[in-house]
Amino acid sequence: MKEKCVCLLSGGMDSATLMYSLLVKYDVWPITIVYGQRHQKEVTAARNLCEAVSKEMVQHWKYVDLSVLRNLLPSSLTGRGDIPEGHYMEESMKTTVVPNRNMILLAVAGGYATGMTAKYLAYGPHQGDHEIYPDCRPDFVFSVTQTLRLGTGWNNDGVELITPFVHMTKADIAHLGEKLKVPYKLTWSCYKGQERPCGVCGTCVERTEAFLKADMTDPALTPEEWKKAVEYLNSVK
Amino acid sequence: MKEKCVCLLSGGMDSATLMYSLLVKYDVWPITIVYGQRHQKEVTAARNLCEAVSKEMVQHWKYVDLSVLRNLLPSSLTGRGDIPEGHYMEESMKTTVVPNRNMILLAVAGGYATGMTAKYLAYGPHQGDHEIYPDCRPDFVFSVTQTLRLGTGWNNDGVELITPFVHMTKADIAHLGEKLKVPYKLTWSCYKGQERPCGVCGTCVERTEAFLKADMTDPALTPEEWKKAVEYLNSVK
Repeated sequence: MKEKCVCLLSGGMDSATLMYSLLVKYDVWPITIVYGQRHQKEVTAARNLCEAVSKEMVQHWKYVDLSVLRNLLPSSLTGRGDIPEGHYMEESMKTTVVPNRNMILLAVAGGYATGMTAKYLAYGPHQGDHEIYPDCRPDFVFSVTQTLRLGTGWNNDGVELITPFVHMTKADIAHLGEKLKVPYKLTWSCYKGQERPCGVCGTCVERTEAFLKADMTDPALTPEEWKKAVEYLNSVK
Repeated sequence: MKEKCVCLLSGGMDSATLMYSLLVKYDVWPITIVYGQRHQKEVTAARNLCEAVSKEMVQHWKYVDLSVLRNLLPSSLTGRGDIPEGHYMEESMKTTVVPNRNMILLAVAGGYATGMTAKYLAYGPHQGDHEIYPDCRPDFVFSVTQTLRLGTGWNNDGVELITPFVHMTKADIAHLGEKLKVPYKLTWSCYKGQERPCGVCGTCVERTEAFLKADMTDPALTPEEWKKAVEYLNSVK
């Protein structure tokens, strides 16, 4: 029998790939935690991704609404100021940091994993996140792994964190996802949450760059949108 | 000017003493986070304690309702089964563990501290908690201190955790609180949340023991209740 693994599923392409990559080895229990984002597009995406896997995965899927945290966690992602446009690595992108977000998500998911006797918890930070988000760095990942282990059990029987992408680029993730047949069409990354992805916010730019480097196109975009996104990327690189 | 310090204030005697002990040195910002406990007695106690300090402290006080976590975190404290009676160190008390609770509280308070530019975050685990709650052990405290630091800043400029009671007993805390004139009459510890403290649950027993060892009586109890609580403690020791 496969061991239970709770998986943080935001609805973006990294966590979608993460979920798919876990399916062979683990009994996967995805969890989507809302912390006050501007929009619910990611939640819909997360649910659609579970449906694409199986009916069972939809039953396994847990949605947790912590949007009251919006008032505690100032960030452009939680509605404080405008979403910056341009390349992911620009100074302006710092407004998209949600203070201590990943520790909050991991702490809550770690409590959930303990309560439902899952040995593992997976989340998908990658190399490209390190420059801008302190809580995606390998140092943080190393430390939070230990904290989770100690906070949830005795004698090393606590929850074990799995972060397979921590030394991969987003292009590597796209490559892996292609092999795993991840339905990227269903994912949502854009920070803005309009009808269609904007193509110009930090995460849209990063996503376009990843697909381009992986010699793929973004299946979530129309050919016209993809062309525009690539043009915008080239203008800000 | 004093530096800002966010302080986890549950409304019990440990965190009340913690808040009072910080007042001399820090600009204190108490935060009370509900995670699905059976009752709201502690929240009322927390607010009353802030009022006892000053009007300003009430304005500084933050109340966060995360009671949706109840469904994620099975524990007798969140309504799964009955509250066990007897001595704190008994096997039955394990049902009062809320999975990963302290990491959740510290993660949320750490995000709040970062967002409001507080350098410090204080919480009050003590020696007597270690046996039963993994997330009160010095090992956990050491690890979570590092995780918070890394998750909330670069180059060691993240939030610093303050845990002054980690090697003290609860009787030591009561002693300190007496010196600091902490109004223990206003605190609430009982797990049950009836009209009056039950005197027989784990935390009531622990509290009685602490006051007794500190040569004090519990100001939150009537003389009759105190007498009964001591009798009960002696019967289960």
